[in-house]
Amino acid sequence: MNHKKQPFQNIGVVGLGLIGGSLGLDLQELGYKVYGLVHRQETASRARELGLATKISTNEIILENCDLVILALPLDELLNPKKELLNALPKKAVITDVGSVKAPILKIWSNLHPRFIGCHPMAGTSQAGVEAGKKNLFKGRPWVSTPDSKTDLEALELVRKLVLSLGSKWITADATNHDEAVALISHLPVLISAALIETVGEEKNNNVYELASKITSSGFADTTRIGGGNPKLGATMASTNSKAILQGLSIYKQCLEKFEKTLIKEDWFALEEKLRRTKKVRSKILSS
Amino acid sequence: MNHKKQPFQNIGVVGLGLIGGSLGLDLQELGYKVYGLVHRQETASRARELGLATKISTNEIILENCDLVILALPLDELLNPKKELLNALPKKAVITDVGSVKAPILKIWSNLHPRFIGCHPMAGTSQAGVEAGKKNLFKGRPWVSTPDSKTDLEALELVRKLVLSLGSKWITADATNHDEAVALISHLPVLISAALIETVGEEKNNNVYELASKITSSGFADTTRIGGGNPKLGATMASTNSKAILQGLSIYKQCLEKFEKTLIKEDWFALEEKLRRTKKVRSKILSS
Repeated sequence: MNHKKQPFQNIGVVGLGLIGGSLGLDLQELGYKVYGLVHRQETASRARELGLATKISTNEIILENCDLVILALPLDELLNPKKELLNALPKKAVITDVGSVKAPILKIWSNLHPRFIGCHPMAGTSQAGVEAGKKNLFKGRPWVSTPDSKTDLEALELVRKLVLSLGSKWITADATNHDEAVALISHLPVLISAALIETVGEEKNNNVYELASKITSSGFADTTRIGGGNPKLGATMASTNSKAILQGLSIYKQCLEKFEKTLIKEDWFALEEKLRRTKKVRSKILSS
Repeated sequence: MNHKKQPFQNIGVVGLGLIGGSLGLDLQELGYKVYGLVHRQETASRARELGLATKISTNEIILENCDLVILALPLDELLNPKKELLNALPKKAVITDVGSVKAPILKIWSNLHPRFIGCHPMAGTSQAGVEAGKKNLFKGRPWVSTPDSKTDLEALELVRKLVLSLGSKWITADATNHDEAVALISHLPVLISAALIETVGEEKNNNVYELASKITSSGFADTTRIGGGNPKLGATMASTNSKAILQGLSIYKQCLEKFEKTLIKEDWFALEEKLRRTKKVRSKILSS
């Protein structure tokens, strides 16, 4: 028996992929009854075998007694929720999500449910799907919530308690600031990284292309990792956050041109100084 | 006793940092006598403690009986070799280097020594200095050699044998092609990565900057890793390979602008297709 009062009794998790499946495992460990809703029978069977939730179904009715429902769905399904799902969400339950773009989701969901709390847990691996769930995925990772003036503060506090019990760091932020921040650290890097892959792929001199392929180092692999990630996710993030991404891209192009200028001017002293500064800035950003 | 005839008897290694120290360890393991030359007494003492070579000195005389000398020096020292070093290199010995840019090195060294073999082992970690040496650093990694019409083919064959005995993959390439390839996969990524760090560092909205710093993910860390690397090395690579880097940067900017256009046009289908292609191209490059 848990001696602290738990914020919820029955927790619904919609979608049992990387995020949903991992939540299912951790929440059961914390003593919750977890009700998993998935699209396909096949996924349900596999999720049952993996023990991702206490009960798992493809029928929305499974959510009926939940006092919290976590929407662990892909971004496009969060932005275009199915009627069956909306009808199945208990009116008194707290509803939260895990979408990586917040302003467009809040715009839709604040009208769909009075107790919706927008969230973005910053945890991920390159894995996806029903096999991807793993324990302690959120431990020590930031969990951003983006309340606004319409947010139900009691619901927010309950979600906060739950998130802290998962070992995550709770952060609140303005939804637009959040979207600009993820544009910089997560969406813009996808484009930057993908354009580098394209640059190598489009090399006209075949000897150079072949040699480049043979000698690629961990540096190239690291810099291009997220540019070689999930294409659908990349496109959906871009489509839902394009203003902030384009804004970041514009600054980025200016920064790149400043580097280019030091090369054209052959100002190696200035280049070394610039690289010394970026080294420091990176350490500062990563240690925050 | 090694039953195969070894290509060399006594091997000099100039510089006992990451590459030189690692070579010293592996070559001793293969049964060679290794003679290490370093700048400072302090480095010599530490290198002796670490067993990086059979004998270690700060005096060039240590190279006198070597039939191979490996110049494991930083790029700027390879391009401006000291007179004392040049005078100490035995005339009949084979001389090779490990510099990451080849055409400028060949231009200088083919006039300095008749048996010079330009090489670039593609191995590295983020470590540097006398503490960085480690065994088997080169195992399974490419080792590029860039012979030209003036190269002593017997010397080339001896170096090839040695390199194969370290477990490396021997690759020969034209020096200019090599420099263009490393511009694409190694030097250009430094600038791309550094410009991303600068973009985040220059964010004007402090709320966005603070949040971005708090929620940085492994994606940002990976994409910016080499932009936060050794500033001096970055500047030296750029200064010795600027033509190829600027050429790559020009293509890169075009690729980035094509991505930007899909965002401006809101053509999410095209973006997803582009990301699908880069994902494939990356796998192809990395599996070569």
